[in-house]
Amino acid sequence: MTLSIIPVHGIPEVRPRDDLVGFLLQALGTARDKIVDGDVLVIAQKVVSKSEGRIVRLADVVPSQQALAMAEDSGKDPRQLEVVLGETKQIIRWERGVLIVETRHGFVCANAGVDRSNAGAPDTVVLLPVDPDASAARIRDEIANRAKATVAVVITDTFGRAWREGHTNVAIGIAGLPALKRYIGQRDPEGYELRVTEIAVADEIAAAAELVMGKLDRCPVAIVRGLTFEDSDETAQEYVRPAARDMFR
Amino acid sequence: MTLSIIPVHGIPEVRPRDDLVGFLLQALGTARDKIVDGDVLVIAQKVVSKSEGRIVRLADVVPSQQALAMAEDSGKDPRQLEVVLGETKQIIRWERGVLIVETRHGFVCANAGVDRSNAGAPDTVVLLPVDPDASAARIRDEIANRAKATVAVVITDTFGRAWREGHTNVAIGIAGLPALKRYIGQRDPEGYELRVTEIAVADEIAAAAELVMGKLDRCPVAIVRGLTFEDSDETAQEYVRPAARDMFR
Repeated sequence: MTLSIIPVHGIPEVRPRDDLVGFLLQALGTARDKIVDGDVLVIAQKVVSKSEGRIVRLADVVPSQQALAMAEDSGKDPRQLEVVLGETKQIIRWERGVLIVETRHGFVCANAGVDRSNAGAPDTVVLLPVDPDASAARIRDEIANRAKATVAVVITDTFGRAWREGHTNVAIGIAGLPALKRYIGQRDPEGYELRVTEIAVADEIAAAAELVMGKLDRCPVAIVRGLTFEDSDETAQEYVRPAARDMFR
Repeated sequence: MTLSIIPVHGIPEVRPRDDLVGFLLQALGTARDKIVDGDVLVIAQKVVSKSEGRIVRLADVVPSQQALAMAEDSGKDPRQLEVVLGETKQIIRWERGVLIVETRHGFVCANAGVDRSNAGAPDTVVLLPVDPDASAARIRDEIANRAKATVAVVITDTFGRAWREGHTNVAIGIAGLPALKRYIGQRDPEGYELRVTEIAVADEIAAAAELVMGKLDRCPVAIVRGLTFEDSDETAQEYVRPAARDMFR
């Protein structure tokens, strides 16, 4: 089985209350490859967030004492820090101006995913979707209704990681495919249990899609075609390692 | 630009001193898609390690006091622990029977990448290559000489990560492509610097390839075709975050 990773060009700048699925279907309709059953539609978080109105004008933010103190320590904008703290369940590290937090969703990442770049307007930040799995499910349902195609949806963001330099794309919301491919209890030809028992498939799909999406060429959507997977109700919450089982907090 | 991720089937069980590149070229020659200039050849570490003789029979191992003590704490095989310790620069975590170490290469992973499954023989473990970047460069050169094709090579292993459940494929050795795609200093249309400045491209290539490789279907090689990249002398050492800059040790 050969996979194709197909970039989807032609999505315009997305603004709050825009019809993102309409934009998607229009871009797909003019693309060489229309969407088909079994495709995985990979969508960068930023366009989803913008369509959902998850943007904040910094002029409207009143920083708390904590944000002001952190700004003084770091030289960062206290208003942006305030927005990050509002998205934060727990601060994991605050060192050398780097802020690693657990988001309300349970993801561990820098600045709770709050980002000032590519916000579409000056002095504005974009937040992660409130519930990226619900966003993915909604997009999936709309595509089923409007395009009569049964697809899976993966919403991505680009996270740093412990120990390794560089960022990679990961899945923050999914619909219609399993998060994990499980090999638990399966054995090799010699009868040994496999060392690796759970593969983070949607994270690997997110990473594959990033290779064609880029950061500056306004290509926030890609199709992964040819993958075999089962329909699933799993969400990206499968990836959240409970704090009690996490050795790196 | 559409990417193709093509699995390469037909690689036989690899043993020490086997001609891995010969196996590769034979499998590619009978495949629908032969290799072409600009392809990225993604190879699972295990077949590289086996061809390089990086296997140890546990019957030949005499465990140290440290390995014996760790075995008593955990119920693990002291001989296998001894092999892991021999590949270890520093133990990062040893809790609840989970051993996370920094390998001699500088990678942080479980059990220094030492694995008993799919070893090809009973009571045998496979170690990571001594220098996976050198292995990748050697394979790349041999393919240039024997198949007259200029390809990039990525050698992969499947690592767990902090905070997120599930494993993903990452690059442990590379040749002929950059490890990182750098956006440093680049700006969005509003003039803001991009938040994400370095994408771990070879890790994303490794993840993409895993989607067609699987763990039980003996498909340790895939081709990523259609990617635009520049030739580079970078190695997977670019991914090693120096301990002094690492907040999660």
